[in-house]
Amino acid sequence: MKPNFSLRLRVFNLNCWGIPYLSKRRGDRMKRLGDFLNMESFDLALLQEVWSEQDFQYLKQKLLPTYPSAHYFRSGIIGSGLCVFSKHPIQEFTQHVYTLNGYPYMIHHGDWFCGKAVGLLVLHLSGLVLNAYVTHLHAEYNRQKDIYLAHRVVQAWELAHFIHHTSKKADVVLLCGDLNLHPKDLGCRLLKEWTGLQDAYLETRDFKGSEEGCTMVPENCYVNRKELHPFSCGIRIDYVLYKAVSGFCISCKTLKTTTGLDPHSGSPLSDHEALMATLCVRHSPPQHSPSSTHGTAENSPLVVVLREALTELDQAVAQAHWWATFAGYVIGLGLLLLAVLCTLAAGGGVTEVAILLWTPSVGLLLGAGAIYTFHMQEAKGLCKARAELQHVLGRAREAQDPGPESQPALILGHQEGSRAEDQ
Amino acid sequence: MKPNFSLRLRVFNLNCWGIPYLSKRRGDRMKRLGDFLNMESFDLALLQEVWSEQDFQYLKQKLLPTYPSAHYFRSGIIGSGLCVFSKHPIQEFTQHVYTLNGYPYMIHHGDWFCGKAVGLLVLHLSGLVLNAYVTHLHAEYNRQKDIYLAHRVVQAWELAHFIHHTSKKADVVLLCGDLNLHPKDLGCRLLKEWTGLQDAYLETRDFKGSEEGCTMVPENCYVNRKELHPFSCGIRIDYVLYKAVSGFCISCKTLKTTTGLDPHSGSPLSDHEALMATLCVRHSPPQHSPSSTHGTAENSPLVVVLREALTELDQAVAQAHWWATFAGYVIGLGLLLLAVLCTLAAGGGVTEVAILLWTPSVGLLLGAGAIYTFHMQEAKGLCKARAELQHVLGRAREAQDPGPESQPALILGHQEGSRAEDQ
Repeated sequence: MKPNFSLRLRVFNLNCWGIPYLSKRRGDRMKRLGDFLNMESFDLALLQEVWSEQDFQYLKQKLLPTYPSAHYFRSGIIGSGLCVFSKHPIQEFTQHVYTLNGYPYMIHHGDWFCGKAVGLLVLHLSGLVLNAYVTHLHAEYNRQKDIYLAHRVVQAWELAHFIHHTSKKADVVLLCGDLNLHPKDLGCRLLKEWTGLQDAYLETRDFKGSEEGCTMVPENCYVNRKELHPFSCGIRIDYVLYKAVSGFCISCKTLKTTTGLDPHSGSPLSDHEALMATLCVRHSPPQHSPSSTHGTAENSPLVVVLREALTELDQAVAQAHWWATFAGYVIGLGLLLLAVLCTLAAGGGVTEVAILLWTPSVGLLLGAGAIYTFHMQEAKGLCKARAELQHVLGRAREAQDPGPESQPALILGHQEGSRAEDQ
Repeated sequence: MKPNFSLRLRVFNLNCWGIPYLSKRRGDRMKRLGDFLNMESFDLALLQEVWSEQDFQYLKQKLLPTYPSAHYFRSGIIGSGLCVFSKHPIQEFTQHVYTLNGYPYMIHHGDWFCGKAVGLLVLHLSGLVLNAYVTHLHAEYNRQKDIYLAHRVVQAWELAHFIHHTSKKADVVLLCGDLNLHPKDLGCRLLKEWTGLQDAYLETRDFKGSEEGCTMVPENCYVNRKELHPFSCGIRIDYVLYKAVSGFCISCKTLKTTTGLDPHSGSPLSDHEALMATLCVRHSPPQHSPSSTHGTAENSPLVVVLREALTELDQAVAQAHWWATFAGYVIGLGLLLLAVLCTLAAGGGVTEVAILLWTPSVGLLLGAGAIYTFHMQEAKGLCKARAELQHVLGRAREAQDPGPESQPALILGHQEGSRAEDQ
């Protein structure tokens, strides 16, 4: 590769709001999205909430001349809703389905049935290896009392961990998607601190679009303004994030968002705003990792955010165990009730009442059994993430503060390792 | 690193048969396993079927002086059963839980509840990056009529894919575990062909142990001889596999197995035999990938095994759809039955019979709903694996046969890529 190597990459990201039967004017919006993508001819279009595989197939056919490579990430029962269209050949792809993704009994929220995931594409562009990730995290239904907070934190952590482990040979990493996280939320900070990804909106000098880069805005006719309260100008939850490894540098030349309207016809493409970024990759001399200049171990941004995440997970583990214990008691109660009903029915006393109560009792037992099983699994998923966070925290502390007192810890398996080179 | 660099690695692998309440003499066997591991002081001990976290904690305490680093891979409801003990610091770890892992209604087999997975450890040994993987695939209960064959093939594929995507910066890759696959089974061939891993038993010149390297042998008192039929000397389903990337070479100096007896006391450590390998890593000049010398595209071993796997998955997808359709009809029937029962009960005719049939009808409906949901999810998982296999098959064909006729395929996104360098 020449020393004056330079690569321009035009990227499009949109949460398409493509829920069959529920999303308004879905067919029309998909058609206009296809027309827009064909006209703009991006290098890469990364979409979320394409829940219907028929919609993907429609777009694939429509976009074939401009984007000859496409992939739909299948997972869960409904699907991840993630898909990509690329002007360049997709060399490889894989995906990771998040361990925790809400609760199956919260049917009206539906996230559990989707199998939320992160998809990875590997592209080779002019000899450069680009790992492009697309994801969609669990929705936030109530910011004041967010029962999914811990799940979203674990998803952000798994996303960061997946990027960390699969991008070691990549020259450039790109992550697009709907994180359902505000920029200062715990999950977002955790993701950025552990991966070193940079936020296109914060980095670019040429931004055009909605106020404060918001990707859900009150001007959009599909958005319920009450749900945006108290954020009067909207919320920023969709992102274009990137980083380059040593030897390359990447910058965001321009970033645009739609502003509640279709760029041409006036009617919006989705209830989210689209992000359109022009990135520039260049050769650069190797640089030191910024993590080593962040101060002492305990107040470094990574350590602070890891400790915060651990506190959140500790609470969530306790809550999962509480629910499993509660369901355990209900199982006991259900078994007792069934035994009483059987005795009553066999004895001939109040037979009809006993038979009538049989169905709800069996239902209670099965329901409690399912809830017990689910929360035991949830606790395991949370403990797994906690163990990973604890391990990284140990290593981060030693990387920042490798004094002689840390030597016993080194012997116990927390040696400063490849963090600097992986960042 | 010096040109005469050489590293010796002693590895231990055992499926521990540690099922609480069910496995015979579990406590005693765990104690003796701990004593043996302490005495032998391997570099790495990789264990499967440590289903009880208490057993892991017991071993962790016992092995602490010799193996200061340890990790237990949590997943699913029961757990993956995987754990590792290392003499060297564990730099990083992560895991992948297999998408498909049997059927929840096959409770007596239990695999679905375990969350079978592959665990990854990253170790830095004398400047060399070692990625060590440990796994346990779905059990084979009936070789003649194996209803889990497709699931095991998908697991083997996901295992290979996970290794492929996470080991790109590793110098040496090691995979140990109970694959529940015979050496010539489809899953085993798929794994070896796609990753380029070599089998310690086939490679070593110094093997001591059970006949034909079997890891379940009739001499073991915990093994049911009938289950081994028709394999009179046993079966080989546990493996030590390895590879080194360009610049290094790895060889297996010695491989030992136990032979149905504890190496010291005479009583076996498990129903499986332990594998003990001494591996040697050395510097070596870069070599060409052997895949380019395997003949024409259609008869190369990788293409042959990919096609075979695709045929298997096609059948499995059709079967999953058949079950989902069948469950759909049962749901319809259940709803009809409930409507009839409600009408009967409301009309006052044969009320008692109607009430009596209420519970089984609701049960039928819920059961069919669960089966429908499960098989729809199974079909999605199979389709996901099939798409990955098809993509790799396309690339493998072009890598082997890059004639001018393959140019249209290149434009359509199947360009020969990093396979050679990743092998």
